[in-house]
Amino acid sequence: MNYQEIVDTLFEQIKSQENKGEVASYIPELSKVDPSHFGICLKTMDGREFGAGDWQHKFSIQSIAKVLILSWAYKTLGDRLWERVGVEPSGNAFNSLTQLETDHGIPRNPLINAGAMVVCDMLLSQAESAKDDFLSFLRNISGNAHFQYSEHIAQSEKSVGYRNIALCNFIKSFENIKNEPEEVLDFYFHICSIEMTCQELAQTFMFLVSDTIKSFEGKIILEEFQAVRVNAIMQTCGFYDESGEFAFRVGLPGKSGVGGGILALHPEQYAIAVWSPKLNSKGNSYRGMKFLESFTSMTKSNNF
Amino acid sequence: MNYQEIVDTLFEQIKSQENKGEVASYIPELSKVDPSHFGICLKTMDGREFGAGDWQHKFSIQSIAKVLILSWAYKTLGDRLWERVGVEPSGNAFNSLTQLETDHGIPRNPLINAGAMVVCDMLLSQAESAKDDFLSFLRNISGNAHFQYSEHIAQSEKSVGYRNIALCNFIKSFENIKNEPEEVLDFYFHICSIEMTCQELAQTFMFLVSDTIKSFEGKIILEEFQAVRVNAIMQTCGFYDESGEFAFRVGLPGKSGVGGGILALHPEQYAIAVWSPKLNSKGNSYRGMKFLESFTSMTKSNNF
Amino acid sequence: MNYQEIVDTLFEQIKSQENKGEVASYIPELSKVDPSHFGICLKTMDGREFGAGDWQHKFSIQSIAKVLILSWAYKTLGDRLWERVGVEPSGNAFNSLTQLETDHGIPRNPLINAGAMVVCDMLLSQAESAKDDFLSFLRNISGNAHFQYSEHIAQSEKSVGYRNIALCNFIKSFENIKNEPEEVLDFYFHICSIEMTCQELAQTFMFLVSDTIKSFEGKIILEEFQAVRVNAIMQTCGFYDESGEFAFRVGLPGKSGVGGGILALHPEQYAIAVWSPKLNSKGNSYRGMKFLESFTSMTKSNNF
Amino acid sequence: MNYQEIVDTLFEQIKSQENKGEVASYIPELSKVDPSHFGICLKTMDGREFGAGDWQHKFSIQSIAKVLILSWAYKTLGDRLWERVGVEPSGNAFNSLTQLETDHGIPRNPLINAGAMVVCDMLLSQAESAKDDFLSFLRNISGNAHFQYSEHIAQSEKSVGYRNIALCNFIKSFENIKNEPEEVLDFYFHICSIEMTCQELAQTFMFLVSDTIKSFEGKIILEEFQAVRVNAIMQTCGFYDESGEFAFRVGLPGKSGVGGGILALHPEQYAIAVWSPKLNSKGNSYRGMKFLESFTSMTKSNNF
Repeated sequence: MNYQEIVDTLFEQIKSQENKGEVASYIPELSKVDPSHFGICLKTMDGREFGAGDWQHKFSIQSIAKVLILSWAYKTLGDRLWERVGVEPSGNAFNSLTQLETDHGIPRNPLINAGAMVVCDMLLSQAESAKDDFLSFLRNISGNAHFQYSEHIAQSEKSVGYRNIALCNFIKSFENIKNEPEEVLDFYFHICSIEMTCQELAQTFMFLVSDTIKSFEGKIILEEFQAVRVNAIMQTCGFYDESGEFAFRVGLPGKSGVGGGILALHPEQYAIAVWSPKLNSKGNSYRGMKFLESFTSMTKSNNF
Repeated sequence: MNYQEIVDTLFEQIKSQENKGEVASYIPELSKVDPSHFGICLKTMDGREFGAGDWQHKFSIQSIAKVLILSWAYKTLGDRLWERVGVEPSGNAFNSLTQLETDHGIPRNPLINAGAMVVCDMLLSQAESAKDDFLSFLRNISGNAHFQYSEHIAQSEKSVGYRNIALCNFIKSFENIKNEPEEVLDFYFHICSIEMTCQELAQTFMFLVSDTIKSFEGKIILEEFQAVRVNAIMQTCGFYDESGEFAFRVGLPGKSGVGGGILALHPEQYAIAVWSPKLNSKGNSYRGMKFLESFTSMTKSNNF
Repeated sequence: MNYQEIVDTLFEQIKSQENKGEVASYIPELSKVDPSHFGICLKTMDGREFGAGDWQHKFSIQSIAKVLILSWAYKTLGDRLWERVGVEPSGNAFNSLTQLETDHGIPRNPLINAGAMVVCDMLLSQAESAKDDFLSFLRNISGNAHFQYSEHIAQSEKSVGYRNIALCNFIKSFENIKNEPEEVLDFYFHICSIEMTCQELAQTFMFLVSDTIKSFEGKIILEEFQAVRVNAIMQTCGFYDESGEFAFRVGLPGKSGVGGGILALHPEQYAIAVWSPKLNSKGNSYRGMKFLESFTSMTKSNNF
Repeated sequence: MNYQEIVDTLFEQIKSQENKGEVASYIPELSKVDPSHFGICLKTMDGREFGAGDWQHKFSIQSIAKVLILSWAYKTLGDRLWERVGVEPSGNAFNSLTQLETDHGIPRNPLINAGAMVVCDMLLSQAESAKDDFLSFLRNISGNAHFQYSEHIAQSEKSVGYRNIALCNFIKSFENIKNEPEEVLDFYFHICSIEMTCQELAQTFMFLVSDTIKSFEGKIILEEFQAVRVNAIMQTCGFYDESGEFAFRVGLPGKSGVGGGILALHPEQYAIAVWSPKLNSKGNSYRGMKFLESFTSMTKSNNF
């Protein structure tokens, strides 16, 4: 079977099975999403594209954006990034404060909420207008000039984000946040609010598939040693307390979001985006996990 | 540069630099090892072999053996293995009891002490003579009929292994050990006592590089889907609380031991064994980590 | 020796010894206090009063106020108070979030910050104007019409209270805070800002010494079964992670504050207030602890 | 009502109500006990004695013995005892290893299993024949020459004591156990195996009610400052994770055992022993807790 046939076959097969799990309910806006959405987009290094289902329907990428802000920070700040955030898997739920207390305010990695906040804080200290600059970065790497923050999702999250407010103030109490928590949280909530289609998501992440993929302006985006490290962090930390399971079953670097999206990639081969809003008990898309496991198995493209 | 030149160059370079860290002292026998030992063996899928330094000098492989017992257990028991041990990184020191308490006696993964003990327990329940059978397995996959347990290292470890005795009895109290703790610990300490040279170690692990590598008897050792999963677990869990760091810097699945050995591999390309007894603060070989970081960087063979 | 002689003797003796520890520095206003202040006031059930040193000098009572807000809440809300806060010692630092995570947002007891916030929240839901009403309660039980919140201390604490903001939002995320965190924190910071002299403090707490002590208006303040329970909580939980040590050395129910004050009492006998700003490593007044240990030893009035 | 009437009234009242909870099942011998047993003995400082129900029926005192071994150790070793064990409530289940890990092998207090083991270890290092000497101490303070270890209970506990074996080896790994764990555990299991009646238990503890109570040989048993400290530790640490609740409801220093016994005392007034085998979810006697709460309420002898 060629890629399109594989994508279609697995799409139909999983669509015909029961859709388990729950749509994220803690953010009011996200709970309104139709749980039956299901879309896939595979994009290969040679530029081919294979879609199925709702692959051109926008959804909130949520935590998947943490990889993008990390990439921009790594490009901008270089290795001093690692003075204030670690690269170890957390072994706890995504918003745990316990580990932060043990580690004196140094988040375990940049793909948990605490770590992404510290990354946001560093960028706020660095850039004139971090919010605008990050949008520019996104538009430039994807060639998509229309990416925008979703104000109503950002506000929706802010209105109920007590755990995140707690997290940010807690890190601040350890002095690992330099700006005011409100400012950091505003940036953080905006980043998570971005909406993309599976197609746009796969396209946007091509710079991590290979450093031969250039930005819209024709420039290299991350040095190769940086890209492999971002991928390594996705591999070990991309799925909260299910990161090991994802490596075990799917075998690719990837990142999930509570909006039901998952982005995964095979270095030098492809990026793949899946979206289905119902989440398993660990907070990762139920159908997304299933699809990707079958996909790497069928294509024998597990990275191990 | 070809492989031999790269191995030699990096060997000389790192040998000329200060050798930091401490030799493991908690096991009396290990503390007697000459800290200046340093050896490397690279073995490629096409059968070539490149060595440097003390690459044909025996050392205690210690926890690296956990991957071998896991592989044998996976082959023998199949997926019911995962009913009693997880596949998630632990995010804590290698012998932590805290997480075990939270997880009601189910170890986070089979590459921490607790997890390896549960694996040993399952094998004891399954096999007539687990200790002998495991040696046969080892000899068969490596083609080396001389592998033996080191009784004096096993005894040395048993004599001071209070933390491990605690761990095993603790799991037993959750009923996730079925045999008597003494029996499980005896098997566990023997497995960790095995001595190999870098050359033997690299040779022994070739079955995880590719399923085209057959056993001495000409049989497939692990199914491909099993081999990639063992590799995935090594990637996310192989270096205790430094697993993320190893993925970040080296980018290969691997496993370290307190004897100062590290085994890493690149799927479909090579296995590499490094040995230097001085350990960094996380319990992994100082020079071993350094060598492997430089090696994947120079050969551009990072897996991400 | 009579009480005055004992108080004077111990005062002089401890004053002549080195004054160890550090003045609380995390609240700007508190760090400005002269560390050499040292005052004591003992008030007996029969109305006699014995003072020494700076016993009529105002200081910030800080966490000692938690006992007063608890008492008012117990009087106002009765036993439904205990549906949202426990009565167990915390076994952790006073502002730990870890235990709160384990206990799903139910603070261990009302004398740690988290617990006092929940008490404040319940009172805010109950009273029209909780801030005014609490002041009235205080004035009534003490007969002192001049008690006031210290706006500059409350503001000083608010300006740096990241840990407390984190705590309150964290509890809110478990839905054990019903009002907005800002409102709860405002009430909480104001309560902690009250200033009293040792004399006023001892006087204010007489209602916990015996239920025969009436309010200014001649009414009983707490039922006896309530007073003994507040005392029991002070005994087991009044000194954060040094509660056992205080019971062990001093043997009285009591409560400390980071302003350097300690209030202790012997049921049916006396209340005693000590103030000295330098704190030991557990956050309790160095000289205060010393004085009280010697006092109960010399007067043989340890409660055990 | 006089004491006998109060004891009888409460006994009948509680006996007529449902008997909730579960008999301890983890030690085989204990699980065989008839759950309907219920006995009380009150002994006053002036030598009077009031019994009800099965007050002269032997039962396994289990952890109540920790107070006795602590008392003997305090007498024998003095304050150097506190170099190796703390006096703080634990805030966790009675056999938790987590806190021990955080505290580097120093148990929080001598009334949790870990702490009692360290006390046993210190006594083993001190005494020629600690097991015999402790029996002599017991016989001497109680005037009862017949106290014996129960070998079958000690063996029963040893046969399933995996958690305790874990605990003891864990402390050993921190070097806060000096003798061999087997020896320490043997002593510990024997101490917990002692059987007493309610009458004997109350009699045995009279030395903590007042230092005017002498041993059988007419000697003072503990100095007053020592007795009040043992009482203080019972008050803050005697009921594992329900110590605060016991102080709150009953208001006396006390200690429970998984055999269903509870010993409590009011300084300078009385000792009281209650026995009923069914335990609440925290591991304390369901009827015992109920009886004591009603008793201190009815006699207004709450210590606060």
